[in-house]
Amino acid sequence: MTAPTIDLNADAGESFGRWTLGDDDALFRYITTANIACGYHAGDPATMRSSLVRAREAGIAAGAHPGYPDLLGFGRRALPASDSDVVDYVLYQVGALAGLAAAEGVPLTHVKPHGALMGRICRSPGLATTIARSLQPLLPGVPLMFAPTEAMRAVTAAGLPVVPENAADLDFDRDGINIVEPVPLAKDPDAVAERALAMARGTVRAVDGTVLPMPVRSVCVHGDRPNAVAIAAAVRQRLESAGFVLSAHKQAS
Amino acid sequence: MTAPTIDLNADAGESFGRWTLGDDDALFRYITTANIACGYHAGDPATMRSSLVRAREAGIAAGAHPGYPDLLGFGRRALPASDSDVVDYVLYQVGALAGLAAAEGVPLTHVKPHGALMGRICRSPGLATTIARSLQPLLPGVPLMFAPTEAMRAVTAAGLPVVPENAADLDFDRDGINIVEPVPLAKDPDAVAERALAMARGTVRAVDGTVLPMPVRSVCVHGDRPNAVAIAAAVRQRLESAGFVLSAHKQAS
Amino acid sequence: MTAPTIDLNADAGESFGRWTLGDDDALFRYITTANIACGYHAGDPATMRSSLVRAREAGIAAGAHPGYPDLLGFGRRALPASDSDVVDYVLYQVGALAGLAAAEGVPLTHVKPHGALMGRICRSPGLATTIARSLQPLLPGVPLMFAPTEAMRAVTAAGLPVVPENAADLDFDRDGINIVEPVPLAKDPDAVAERALAMARGTVRAVDGTVLPMPVRSVCVHGDRPNAVAIAAAVRQRLESAGFVLSAHKQAS
Amino acid sequence: MTAPTIDLNADAGESFGRWTLGDDDALFRYITTANIACGYHAGDPATMRSSLVRAREAGIAAGAHPGYPDLLGFGRRALPASDSDVVDYVLYQVGALAGLAAAEGVPLTHVKPHGALMGRICRSPGLATTIARSLQPLLPGVPLMFAPTEAMRAVTAAGLPVVPENAADLDFDRDGINIVEPVPLAKDPDAVAERALAMARGTVRAVDGTVLPMPVRSVCVHGDRPNAVAIAAAVRQRLESAGFVLSAHKQAS
Repeated sequence: MTAPTIDLNADAGESFGRWTLGDDDALFRYITTANIACGYHAGDPATMRSSLVRAREAGIAAGAHPGYPDLLGFGRRALPASDSDVVDYVLYQVGALAGLAAAEGVPLTHVKPHGALMGRICRSPGLATTIARSLQPLLPGVPLMFAPTEAMRAVTAAGLPVVPENAADLDFDRDGINIVEPVPLAKDPDAVAERALAMARGTVRAVDGTVLPMPVRSVCVHGDRPNAVAIAAAVRQRLESAGFVLSAHKQAS
Repeated sequence: MTAPTIDLNADAGESFGRWTLGDDDALFRYITTANIACGYHAGDPATMRSSLVRAREAGIAAGAHPGYPDLLGFGRRALPASDSDVVDYVLYQVGALAGLAAAEGVPLTHVKPHGALMGRICRSPGLATTIARSLQPLLPGVPLMFAPTEAMRAVTAAGLPVVPENAADLDFDRDGINIVEPVPLAKDPDAVAERALAMARGTVRAVDGTVLPMPVRSVCVHGDRPNAVAIAAAVRQRLESAGFVLSAHKQAS
Repeated sequence: MTAPTIDLNADAGESFGRWTLGDDDALFRYITTANIACGYHAGDPATMRSSLVRAREAGIAAGAHPGYPDLLGFGRRALPASDSDVVDYVLYQVGALAGLAAAEGVPLTHVKPHGALMGRICRSPGLATTIARSLQPLLPGVPLMFAPTEAMRAVTAAGLPVVPENAADLDFDRDGINIVEPVPLAKDPDAVAERALAMARGTVRAVDGTVLPMPVRSVCVHGDRPNAVAIAAAVRQRLESAGFVLSAHKQAS
Repeated sequence: MTAPTIDLNADAGESFGRWTLGDDDALFRYITTANIACGYHAGDPATMRSSLVRAREAGIAAGAHPGYPDLLGFGRRALPASDSDVVDYVLYQVGALAGLAAAEGVPLTHVKPHGALMGRICRSPGLATTIARSLQPLLPGVPLMFAPTEAMRAVTAAGLPVVPENAADLDFDRDGINIVEPVPLAKDPDAVAERALAMARGTVRAVDGTVLPMPVRSVCVHGDRPNAVAIAAAVRQRLESAGFVLSAHKQAS
């Protein structure tokens, strides 16, 4: 019998110029997939390149993490840009990372939206589908990574690749929507690990106690949480103890 | 006997958000190659996409026009960024345009640096070679378009593709370096057309009267000059009257 | 009997770096008050200074026109920044203009929010009051200029100075809220002038025909409309023909 | 006999949005003057306000720390902006901080340029004088704080207020110019304290051993150095042990 696999992803490359955020070197020892910021909410060309190199050296998968053009708000404010603008923002950022990734010989494995843009895509089946389709000429077969939602069912129904994921270090409401903090604070690594294991097994417990289905192939921990490395280590240890093999998702192509 | 060919290029897509610069629709009726701004000195994702679409509809070649990250200075101030940062700025911007171009099915034919970045690359054989080499994994066979200089000889010697070009609407000093204006003003279309023809034939007259070799395959007119369209029309008419066929350069690959 | 007075205001200084928007020199011959962009949605330090100088030379009043930090969206997208951040954005921008105005010896006569920020303040009595109060230490007695609304009644009730104004070149819904266009298009100068006169007399006709009270001391025309100068000229002519004296509002202090 | 006094200044408020830089709360226990970033190289409106509040609570002087408009380069790259643009950049930033400072009732005590802008002003007597003069209408009597140089002698000769200062945590060449690091690294607190004491007494030892006059009224330690707090503590302790009273400079007005 084959061991079940699960992917452990984290946002990375969220430094900008003189400012450092997160400890990617440490984090990359525990996760299997890095979502690399692309310059709109965080990241800059040099940081993007060095994040790609670190991911390659750590032997983990690397994908794009595009956000709203809002450095000051770190992409966590819901900018009411038009759908058309949003599609172009994503192509711009993913293309930019692809340019640097080509130079480094690093294949991009996925695209995961960031912050308020993620929230919007999860609530917008049409926009999610347009984005997933628009990315195919640039990155054939590369999936959009986001939460299992009606939007994801729409993307899948359109024959486009996805990776269902959700955050193990956030609480969930009874509709299965995670509850975003304005600024991530330290969390109990054991509690996050417990939720990650439940999610790897297909469920999550909402804040009101309801147990909801959460059929993910990847669980996320946030790299800008103060104890992000401790959390990632705890999650990995718990998943492996329970018999999971940690591995980046397999691409469609 | 085959008619000689020459390319006529112009910077394009230099609008930004609410602000319009240049009349690309009119300009594209006369030029054969558009250099599309990539968001650092001008341009934004929606403008980049619409510029690609317009180039395709006009049947002209489209390439990337990366600059320094300086919207306020329009990329015309020599930012002392490190060579390493400059290479990454170029990859970022060219990749971003390539992402949008893939979605529109528009092949990118060349990369031409903008403003103060162009000046730096023309004076930096090592940097020019590194940039030309770094672009190959992303855009195999696609040439770097810039002035015939020692830097261009270095890139060519490294076996990397180039398109020699220079501006017909600027004056030249006796070393063959064009004299950049802080802000482009209207110029006499006939005088520019005369210089364009001389350049198509391989020479240019410096401001001191010296005739210098200027072996270009493409001549440039600046799209943000107030009478840019009239100039482009005059240049095209003059080149065709003299027996030149206007045509985008042929790619190496 | 004294002739009634009315102020005619327009947004100004909305160029940015290489990009020009509006024809302030022509516009300033007709208006009596200029609202100068402060760098967040448009404007840059050199443009701000030259706008102040032009206002002084034209003999018109000059005030601050702060917006959301969104150059790409020209401040016309409703950024969900916190109230606390919005207050600080306004103080930052008004202070910045005040620094340049001090150097030029130009007194600032008012603060008028721009675009989506204006919309927010008109709907937010608490925020409007906090902003009006926060500005007093920097600019004692200087009023907040915005639409006559419940928010304005709150500011007035707090003993803080206001100038009621509204746009004569926009349509109004039956609640007296103007209907913002994504990008201003040319409008019939006579129709705008007709509405400006009605507003100067205290009413406006909504799109459904209802006549609503609109007790303003200043009417606005948008400087980035293509025929802004023709509109301003027509409005001024109509107001003067009807016996109004055009004059900037008088400050409370 | 009165004890000699010396000011200990540090750059502060250099966080930006989601990114934190420096530990201002700890630093403010040791320094007597904070130079607050104004949004161009670092800082944002909320950070500026909270820095002003912290300075007031710590009982230390607060001034403006304007830089080049280059967040990505943290103001440490010499942007070749025109003198006229530089003056306007300074007025914009100082005015912006003054707007927030007025709201908080915090008087601004000085203006100290940042990074590459500081280097330029120290080498430009004319520009330094123009800036010092341009600031007077906004902040009457408030001095420009920079290194004792020919530029400072020019400003003083023009009857404008200055505070001579220099960095105790940088090396100096034999011309008395400090040697800027691309990114500040940790330094030996004792060595810095030793140099600070020498500077308080009017001299500094260059890297070649030459002892140079360095007549400062304020010594600087950089807040973004990893062990900035330890350095500030050591400097303060050494200066007090040697009999100096730490005190912000006295304003001219």
